[in-house]
Amino acid sequence: MKEAFSQLIDQISSGQMTKEEALEAFEDMSFSKLEYATIDHHREQRVGYPEVIYCQHKTLDQVVGIFETLADRGKNVLATRATEEMAKAILERFPEAHYNPLGRTVVLDQEHKVETEDYIAIVAAGTSDLPVVEEAYETAKIFGNQVLKIVDVGVAGIHRLFNRLEEIRGAKVIIVVAGMEGALASVLGGLVDKPIIAVPTSVGYGASFGGVSALLTMLNSCASGVVVVNIDNGFGAAYSASQMNQLK
Amino acid sequence: MKEAFSQLIDQISSGQMTKEEALEAFEDMSFSKLEYATIDHHREQRVGYPEVIYCQHKTLDQVVGIFETLADRGKNVLATRATEEMAKAILERFPEAHYNPLGRTVVLDQEHKVETEDYIAIVAAGTSDLPVVEEAYETAKIFGNQVLKIVDVGVAGIHRLFNRLEEIRGAKVIIVVAGMEGALASVLGGLVDKPIIAVPTSVGYGASFGGVSALLTMLNSCASGVVVVNIDNGFGAAYSASQMNQLK
Amino acid sequence: MKEAFSQLIDQISSGQMTKEEALEAFEDMSFSKLEYATIDHHREQRVGYPEVIYCQHKTLDQVVGIFETLADRGKNVLATRATEEMAKAILERFPEAHYNPLGRTVVLDQEHKVETEDYIAIVAAGTSDLPVVEEAYETAKIFGNQVLKIVDVGVAGIHRLFNRLEEIRGAKVIIVVAGMEGALASVLGGLVDKPIIAVPTSVGYGASFGGVSALLTMLNSCASGVVVVNIDNGFGAAYSASQMNQLK
Amino acid sequence: MKEAFSQLIDQISSGQMTKEEALEAFEDMSFSKLEYATIDHHREQRVGYPEVIYCQHKTLDQVVGIFETLADRGKNVLATRATEEMAKAILERFPEAHYNPLGRTVVLDQEHKVETEDYIAIVAAGTSDLPVVEEAYETAKIFGNQVLKIVDVGVAGIHRLFNRLEEIRGAKVIIVVAGMEGALASVLGGLVDKPIIAVPTSVGYGASFGGVSALLTMLNSCASGVVVVNIDNGFGAAYSASQMNQLK
Amino acid sequence: MKEAFSQLIDQISSGQMTKEEALEAFEDMSFSKLEYATIDHHREQRVGYPEVIYCQHKTLDQVVGIFETLADRGKNVLATRATEEMAKAILERFPEAHYNPLGRTVVLDQEHKVETEDYIAIVAAGTSDLPVVEEAYETAKIFGNQVLKIVDVGVAGIHRLFNRLEEIRGAKVIIVVAGMEGALASVLGGLVDKPIIAVPTSVGYGASFGGVSALLTMLNSCASGVVVVNIDNGFGAAYSASQMNQLK
Amino acid sequence: MKEAFSQLIDQISSGQMTKEEALEAFEDMSFSKLEYATIDHHREQRVGYPEVIYCQHKTLDQVVGIFETLADRGKNVLATRATEEMAKAILERFPEAHYNPLGRTVVLDQEHKVETEDYIAIVAAGTSDLPVVEEAYETAKIFGNQVLKIVDVGVAGIHRLFNRLEEIRGAKVIIVVAGMEGALASVLGGLVDKPIIAVPTSVGYGASFGGVSALLTMLNSCASGVVVVNIDNGFGAAYSASQMNQLK
Amino acid sequence: MKEAFSQLIDQISSGQMTKEEALEAFEDMSFSKLEYATIDHHREQRVGYPEVIYCQHKTLDQVVGIFETLADRGKNVLATRATEEMAKAILERFPEAHYNPLGRTVVLDQEHKVETEDYIAIVAAGTSDLPVVEEAYETAKIFGNQVLKIVDVGVAGIHRLFNRLEEIRGAKVIIVVAGMEGALASVLGGLVDKPIIAVPTSVGYGASFGGVSALLTMLNSCASGVVVVNIDNGFGAAYSASQMNQLK
Amino acid sequence: MKEAFSQLIDQISSGQMTKEEALEAFEDMSFSKLEYATIDHHREQRVGYPEVIYCQHKTLDQVVGIFETLADRGKNVLATRATEEMAKAILERFPEAHYNPLGRTVVLDQEHKVETEDYIAIVAAGTSDLPVVEEAYETAKIFGNQVLKIVDVGVAGIHRLFNRLEEIRGAKVIIVVAGMEGALASVLGGLVDKPIIAVPTSVGYGASFGGVSALLTMLNSCASGVVVVNIDNGFGAAYSASQMNQLK
Repeated sequence: MKEAFSQLIDQISSGQMTKEEALEAFEDMSFSKLEYATIDHHREQRVGYPEVIYCQHKTLDQVVGIFETLADRGKNVLATRATEEMAKAILERFPEAHYNPLGRTVVLDQEHKVETEDYIAIVAAGTSDLPVVEEAYETAKIFGNQVLKIVDVGVAGIHRLFNRLEEIRGAKVIIVVAGMEGALASVLGGLVDKPIIAVPTSVGYGASFGGVSALLTMLNSCASGVVVVNIDNGFGAAYSASQMNQLK
Repeated sequence: MKEAFSQLIDQISSGQMTKEEALEAFEDMSFSKLEYATIDHHREQRVGYPEVIYCQHKTLDQVVGIFETLADRGKNVLATRATEEMAKAILERFPEAHYNPLGRTVVLDQEHKVETEDYIAIVAAGTSDLPVVEEAYETAKIFGNQVLKIVDVGVAGIHRLFNRLEEIRGAKVIIVVAGMEGALASVLGGLVDKPIIAVPTSVGYGASFGGVSALLTMLNSCASGVVVVNIDNGFGAAYSASQMNQLK
Repeated sequence: MKEAFSQLIDQISSGQMTKEEALEAFEDMSFSKLEYATIDHHREQRVGYPEVIYCQHKTLDQVVGIFETLADRGKNVLATRATEEMAKAILERFPEAHYNPLGRTVVLDQEHKVETEDYIAIVAAGTSDLPVVEEAYETAKIFGNQVLKIVDVGVAGIHRLFNRLEEIRGAKVIIVVAGMEGALASVLGGLVDKPIIAVPTSVGYGASFGGVSALLTMLNSCASGVVVVNIDNGFGAAYSASQMNQLK
Repeated sequence: MKEAFSQLIDQISSGQMTKEEALEAFEDMSFSKLEYATIDHHREQRVGYPEVIYCQHKTLDQVVGIFETLADRGKNVLATRATEEMAKAILERFPEAHYNPLGRTVVLDQEHKVETEDYIAIVAAGTSDLPVVEEAYETAKIFGNQVLKIVDVGVAGIHRLFNRLEEIRGAKVIIVVAGMEGALASVLGGLVDKPIIAVPTSVGYGASFGGVSALLTMLNSCASGVVVVNIDNGFGAAYSASQMNQLK
Repeated sequence: MKEAFSQLIDQISSGQMTKEEALEAFEDMSFSKLEYATIDHHREQRVGYPEVIYCQHKTLDQVVGIFETLADRGKNVLATRATEEMAKAILERFPEAHYNPLGRTVVLDQEHKVETEDYIAIVAAGTSDLPVVEEAYETAKIFGNQVLKIVDVGVAGIHRLFNRLEEIRGAKVIIVVAGMEGALASVLGGLVDKPIIAVPTSVGYGASFGGVSALLTMLNSCASGVVVVNIDNGFGAAYSASQMNQLK
Repeated sequence: MKEAFSQLIDQISSGQMTKEEALEAFEDMSFSKLEYATIDHHREQRVGYPEVIYCQHKTLDQVVGIFETLADRGKNVLATRATEEMAKAILERFPEAHYNPLGRTVVLDQEHKVETEDYIAIVAAGTSDLPVVEEAYETAKIFGNQVLKIVDVGVAGIHRLFNRLEEIRGAKVIIVVAGMEGALASVLGGLVDKPIIAVPTSVGYGASFGGVSALLTMLNSCASGVVVVNIDNGFGAAYSASQMNQLK
Repeated sequence: MKEAFSQLIDQISSGQMTKEEALEAFEDMSFSKLEYATIDHHREQRVGYPEVIYCQHKTLDQVVGIFETLADRGKNVLATRATEEMAKAILERFPEAHYNPLGRTVVLDQEHKVETEDYIAIVAAGTSDLPVVEEAYETAKIFGNQVLKIVDVGVAGIHRLFNRLEEIRGAKVIIVVAGMEGALASVLGGLVDKPIIAVPTSVGYGASFGGVSALLTMLNSCASGVVVVNIDNGFGAAYSASQMNQLK
Repeated sequence: MKEAFSQLIDQISSGQMTKEEALEAFEDMSFSKLEYATIDHHREQRVGYPEVIYCQHKTLDQVVGIFETLADRGKNVLATRATEEMAKAILERFPEAHYNPLGRTVVLDQEHKVETEDYIAIVAAGTSDLPVVEEAYETAKIFGNQVLKIVDVGVAGIHRLFNRLEEIRGAKVIIVVAGMEGALASVLGGLVDKPIIAVPTSVGYGASFGGVSALLTMLNSCASGVVVVNIDNGFGAAYSASQMNQLK
């Protein structure tokens, strides 16, 4: 922001702009004004990624409207937690968009980024964790990352994990997805030397308390190198993993 | 109880006793009457083990008094959660008693039971879990079990566990003691075919919530064959393990 | 695993296998590769029981697919938390399978194990606890155990319990199923000398918090000899009970 | 209050008082004005009992000051949660007062009420619950009730309870004091036909959560006829029990 | 129980019965054996009230079956938490039964008890608390009590409460029903000298946590004389209130 | 109330009224008596605002009945948490009423208050918070306040907030509406010198625990000047904001 | 900030300053740089009040150092949660400072603001709540407000409250301080038409959970017009009350 | 592990070793055997870092013993949560070790790693968060990272943060340390494009619940790119940050 202001000051100093013009220009270029949302186009520049549409708690019209506004700028667009009805509405307008029903995501790839050489491994404890895996996968892909999925290697049958260990160790960043007791993150933390992003899932019943059990497990990991995101937050894990995977 | 009543009925029927005498006799033989505690001598007969003194929340005088009453019957006595002061007071009266300061236990072995051939394995994640390990160990020993302790084999360095796996698999019952995220129970659950009793410990900080994190992990174990006792309840785990180890 | 590696080493040493063949063979014999699940056939050998399908959080297709893969190996198969629709789909394919709608289980008995002489007693506080009782019952049966069900003997009418006490005491292991305040486990803990596995149920309302009340009661049992599993986890209780019942 | 106002209206109507005098008189007779507390002398008239001093969170000077003000009116005074230091300070001023160190109470009996013929039974699970038992006992006594204490009859040895059942059934109201899992209230609820006031205590550790376990147990009692007060609230239980015991 | 045993002993002693006959007779007269429930007819004798059917978590068939068994003994029957479908099924069989849809109760009055002269006041904070009020009302009535309902006198408009204070003070026992912050119980506790049974309700949203807020308020009442039952437990409050109202 | 009583006393003293008449008159003028609700017309006089209908937990008939009773007095009426069906029923009877489906409110403006010159700013973090914003907006408007809505200025794109800062600072009172982590309140607290009323919303998932996360954030604001209301309580925030906005 | 930048731009445009000088000047005038704290002198301008020192979690040296830095600017200084040792150290350096040991505050009045004509009423339920009352009192005073304290008017003796109602109603803003069940806020909410800021206190035991009970009560107040701050946050309540009391 | 086994196989195949020798050699080179801890020297190879001593819950002797064993291998050693007494004991033995009393760390730098060119920024909200900052700082340094500390830039004075934004943006990884409401992580998440590791601290009181408030805030961050570690876990944050900072 400082830099932008700085340039404006220069333009004022040089007489290229009046102060009023400069301030107006600044606002114009920063925000699209929809009735119900202030879309933040500067965001990509500021934090490196376009805004993503979190569909839950939004109406169909809001979702489609925001999607269109974002798409019209020629950028990649990602909608998460999309209902089937929302996905359908978006695909009618953008037939080239891709809907992943398990992951509840819609992506519109308009930039065709070159995929990274380093890859993110998404390692999941059980079949029931797949919706979160898919959300993370779609997110990481649209952000330009090579991704490897390894599913159903929970600690109850730990040699399944060992069989895939070389592949996991080959990744630059590892996302671990697990519900119930979520022990997979701790076990992997002791076996690899790459950052692990742990995603607790709401898979379980009774004293799993909707994912709290796995969340606490991951926060209390006796192995170091494990950081955690919110329950079922496949998107957030992939967002951070993408940042790490693209560190130079 | 039914049986005891039955015998009394027989004695009444046969005229050996009046009904009043029988009822009185029954009460007399069942209870010692201290001022502050109703000691239950029938317990061993009923559930197989003598009453144990849980010292926390009790005064020094109460603990010593109950210990003496139990000792006077010639049976083994076990006091748990004993402070150093309590231990000292007991040892003054019973110099042959044994105090384990780490486990906070005092045992008086008067019966010299023959140790079982089958053994209980107590497997602990870290050095910090030792107080609970020792409580479990002393309990299992005084109940006549052979016991094997395997400490500091937490999942953060999982090959330490694999190195001891044969010994663990050789046990008839396994007690797993772990704090923090408590993942050790789940991992072992997938590696052995014996009953596992998991004891969460209060080792940890922050979101471990005094052992709740480990407790939830163990209750939600994705591996089957894991049953759980209260946080830091080394005694309870060993009590149940002893029952199982002596099943025929 | 150590043993398996050991044999492979021998085969290599003796020239029966190349190192590469050995490694490949090892992987082949261990895992069936479905698209969405890594089925663990070694499990039975390793922990003594076949893998069980926990249907909740899985799709119909996933459940049926896993069931078929497991069934094709000629082993007993157990599906828990099966919806009516899942059960129907399984029974169409395996008409000899048995569906218990109250317990939400489907079992396919292909091994016809000889039932144990020792029996497991499943003791439940109330009629409302029956779904958990049935899940435990079906599990224990398919694992080859003789089982005795005793229902509706909650502590509110404690003589109902005493009337059945001899039968309960005859068991080798006891599963106690109770919701609301879950006091039945504590009471029985003081009356028997066999291991008790307590299953809190989500029966209740208000401050029962979906079974938390009963769970805490059972974890804090003043009577020793009580171990606990997750809320509504009839399967887990029976799994552990089966291990204990078959201890020699 | 309505009645009091009514009388004042009458006195005004009849010219015995001016309106101003009446209002002032009313305020004067109702409140003593200490600097730090508005003592409520009308309370006994309004709800049937004198105000009691809850000492916790109060300073020594505040406690002694309030005690004196109450004592000076010639009524019985009860201080609960008194520290030894507070008790000492009160006894210096009122040597006839009685201090119960276990129950942390100080009572000053100035009215010498005739004890009720009906009695309140205070039934406690364990020796560790005695502080709460004593608080309840002292409260019930100073309120003029005959009281019977029955301690250490927890459900882990249930025949101890049955041995005392006739005495318990003879009471008009029953207070049940229990920590850990608190099952005693449910069991008694099924055995007696008198109101039971259950007091959870903070006795326990780990997942007893400072008495929450026992509290939930009592709130979820499967037996009817059980009402509950706050954790460790021996005073409150006795207050309500006294009201019930003196119902006609 | 002791008494019953005592009589049997007498009959044996006198030769009126063999020991075997006595034991059998005892069991026969105590329990009806349905497939899914052990109905406890001795209960009324033991605790003073017939068993009540808590319909939640039970199937339609179970509810109707238990209702019939109880009704056939000529006693009053009460079903709580009955769905409309359950009520309909019961009324088809017992047209003289009475269904209260707001209170979700079905009562069958076969004993026509004489109503008590003393009355129970049910005082509720708001219109939204009516379902719990009605459950309490129906319960208290079928147990033979005179009952007075006073609704919508919450503390937000406290003079509404004062307007009804004389009526409330006239009761022998008071049930207070309140959700949200549940302050009504504390306020009334300071205004009356009769036992107050407080029922927190699940009325509210957000940080009311399904009634926890009101529950905690009531347990922590600064006014004495308030005892508490489970959230929404109108039945339990009325059961205890009935016991108190009929104390002599 | 004191004042009202005072006037009555005067009327009695002066002989204008008998005591009985006065008491009756007092009751008559204070309460409308519906079967299911005691409507409190004195409330506006006492606290400055008419009673509002909180529709949740009420039946359609109750809502419409209360609405009519309030409307018949010629005052403004506000119904919150109205379902579409309730709104429809009210609008049939009062076509001039206004239904806001997003805010779930129905207002009937019969008083046409002059709007304040000072305004309340309602500042919301995201589009998903709109239902709470609308509830607050409708409430503040019907209470006669000028209101400015500023939506979707959450801290994830903080310059959106800075762009609107002058408008926010121009308000006399600020309502901040935010879900998820609710950081907006803290940030604004450090930027303005006006009272901030923070409303946590239930927007979020996983560890947002239905709004608890935002609630705790707001209660723990490191910036001063932030007060908090219940989760999703747009009405309550606007009620208090209106009181503040109309302070002189 | 915008304004400040705007002036700088003007100065640059007019050639009064180089761009570099302007940026530097801006930083210099905004921040004092201590080693351990970035003191924010602009704060008063921005939000209307000087920064306050929250002493808890800080070392003695840090507290004294910050106090001196703030005092040296000639402004009023307020330190909250000060230990006796901290207070002593500050008073040695600033003998004219005032220490309130009950409220744990130290104030240094260097500005001698004229007190407001409107007053804030601080109304507290019990003597035990005094520490929070005093913290609020000292805060409100140093911010220039007239304050009225009314203590020990809890709802258990509600006429004590009514006796002081006129004084309370005379305030412009009301702070309600209450622990245990915290009902005082709801009751007052129904009796006054001024903003109420409720402060839950940690006074209580057992299920008061360190103030959570009172906090929930206040958040769920059935009376409107109640906003809430953190447990024991007397400072925060007074800060907001001061803002409101000084609204014009 | 696979690789190590592979080499052993080769050595056996080539006759360089007997199978027995190989297995023994493997165990010998992997573990040092202290009485109370199994030290894992392979760990650095496996996950890239030496084991660290978490001193809490350990005795003085255990800490010193483990420290010596690790130091004797010539590697860097880090002890966290060290008491002053522990630090003293270590420094007596290793005078060249460095003790940070605020951060409660002892480090022994024996490897003198070359510092990274990229740096980790540790950004903290307040002075009270310094202990966690220092723990993170010492950890990151001993792991060879360049580190920049920026303290007391909490959101209550947000321009303090903006003043340091360029420095923060220059980092490769950012650690955010904040207690109370923890909003700093969300705000920074919207301003930078580097991975943010958020550490909630236990700074706060009342409803901060020992850091839970900040933890939930960080897990629910509306800004993406924020991952979280346990409350007060400065070590864990620095460990993961070091992994990320050294990614290539």
